[in-house]
Amino acid sequence: MAQSAMLSHLPTINDVRDAADRIRSFIHRTPIITSQSMNELIGAHLFFKCENFQKVGAFKARGACNAVMMLDEAVAERGVVTHSSGNHAQALAYAARLRGIQCTIVMPSNAPKVKRDAVLEYGASIVLCEPTLQSRLHTMQQIIDTTGAHAIPPYDDARVIAGQGTAALELLEDFPDLDVIMAPVGGGGLLSGTAIVTRAVCPNAAIIGAEPEVADDAKRSMDTGIRQPPPTTMTIADGLRTALGELPFAVLQHTQVRIVTATEKSIIDGLYHMMERLKIVVEPSASVTLGALLDDPQLVRGKRVGIIVCGGNLDVRTHLKF
Amino acid sequence: MAQSAMLSHLPTINDVRDAADRIRSFIHRTPIITSQSMNELIGAHLFFKCENFQKVGAFKARGACNAVMMLDEAVAERGVVTHSSGNHAQALAYAARLRGIQCTIVMPSNAPKVKRDAVLEYGASIVLCEPTLQSRLHTMQQIIDTTGAHAIPPYDDARVIAGQGTAALELLEDFPDLDVIMAPVGGGGLLSGTAIVTRAVCPNAAIIGAEPEVADDAKRSMDTGIRQPPPTTMTIADGLRTALGELPFAVLQHTQVRIVTATEKSIIDGLYHMMERLKIVVEPSASVTLGALLDDPQLVRGKRVGIIVCGGNLDVRTHLKF
Repeated sequence: MAQSAMLSHLPTINDVRDAADRIRSFIHRTPIITSQSMNELIGAHLFFKCENFQKVGAFKARGACNAVMMLDEAVAERGVVTHSSGNHAQALAYAARLRGIQCTIVMPSNAPKVKRDAVLEYGASIVLCEPTLQSRLHTMQQIIDTTGAHAIPPYDDARVIAGQGTAALELLEDFPDLDVIMAPVGGGGLLSGTAIVTRAVCPNAAIIGAEPEVADDAKRSMDTGIRQPPPTTMTIADGLRTALGELPFAVLQHTQVRIVTATEKSIIDGLYHMMERLKIVVEPSASVTLGALLDDPQLVRGKRVGIIVCGGNLDVRTHLKF
Repeated sequence: MAQSAMLSHLPTINDVRDAADRIRSFIHRTPIITSQSMNELIGAHLFFKCENFQKVGAFKARGACNAVMMLDEAVAERGVVTHSSGNHAQALAYAARLRGIQCTIVMPSNAPKVKRDAVLEYGASIVLCEPTLQSRLHTMQQIIDTTGAHAIPPYDDARVIAGQGTAALELLEDFPDLDVIMAPVGGGGLLSGTAIVTRAVCPNAAIIGAEPEVADDAKRSMDTGIRQPPPTTMTIADGLRTALGELPFAVLQHTQVRIVTATEKSIIDGLYHMMERLKIVVEPSASVTLGALLDDPQLVRGKRVGIIVCGGNLDVRTHLKF
């Protein structure tokens, strides 16, 4: 797949609507939950779109299904490949199984067993490589050269972005009068899909992306107008330890998205509040939005705020002890 | 309140239907969730009625609301009282605030601050006592003698049992063709309410109560036909560390309920599975049912099984560490 093919156009609301029709039978229409005690905590009306209840436990099922279902038969029959040890790997494996095609996941040799097992459960093959980006890309290219498999990247892809946008589309169908829409930003697939939808169907709403303060490359990219390299610092929000993608960056610039940050302490505090008050399991990447509101409640005081809860793949056996 | 007044009759399905009408505007109709991976784990079709999403985070809101809303005005205006450091305390405080009446909770002086704060947030008063049952009862009687407050016990009360039964009523309205209904059993309020409803509207379904193996007084009570004293051993399922009530026991005997047990290991394993696969936060008392199925999946193999998830008040800040 040529890089130019992925970047041939910025996805539009029509791409998202088509994606919604295409993937409807393969994904959950996830619930939107509210909590009076959470509203009191922040001083706003919060509407949580629960993608932690999505297939594979994260919004990533949407983009992967859209990309896989869009493939021509001749392309699809050679299979799909990606490099990831996160939710996109599971999502692509899930989508490929639905379509009945081969799926190969390139993973670093140090990826946790729990992540490998999750992918294997969906019937995908795993090819291990050295834990460097160079080795990942090299290994993936070898698979493409050998098998003709089609690469589906995690976020720098118009089909994937259009799929991720369907979460915001559902949210705004159910609650059309929101003042603010928030989503976390790592590679930017979810936030850019969300921004496309919001600008089209709820044009006056503010769009706010949230990222960890220690991994604020999206904020610095938007401030400088130049896409910044990925952060080298660690954050507990492991799903957001990634560089902002080229195509998502272009969308965010077009749609006047604001980026805010959350401290590590507030990300964890937000996660506790979501588990205590909403009674849902979320991963740390999903509490970065609430973390940013805990750091600065004035951002949304008195407003009606939709928050996309990106996923629930928390390693509870490691972190929850009795 | 005379003991005899509480035991004047076994609650019926009509009492539960009346309770459902009475409390409808004060409680959530909680969602029922399913999970393919959970079904595969047990080899059955499982329908989880999520009372962890209920007001105050547990089914207890149902019984407390029913009891409080049934009070005559002259009784209500003198307030209500109970002794509890658990979910019933919060539930009674919640119900009393809704009705605009005084609520006093007698708590042992060693009750955790988090439990005290939860009750205070609902506007109830707390009177601390020595951490013995004798001191609790003595302190509660003093309050009744002084203020004329009306005691609402946590489970040994026909009004409370009728309220708890409304969860099963909702479950069977949404899924009328279940083969098995399961609920945990501690004092027996939830299980007896569930049994009354199931026998009336789904008479052929099996009713199974689950309790910790180390606190199996309900099982021994049913086996011997004589209500057994509460267990002295500790179980992680802190909501079930209580004696089976007299009135619940009579109901369970009338309705041919079967009691099964779960090991401590399976209760914890069940809790992990519910958090990993359902992405919901539950307290250990709520995973005793799944724990029993992990110990003996043959119990429900191939069946359609409704499981009442009693609550989600897990102390995540103590147990979840990063």
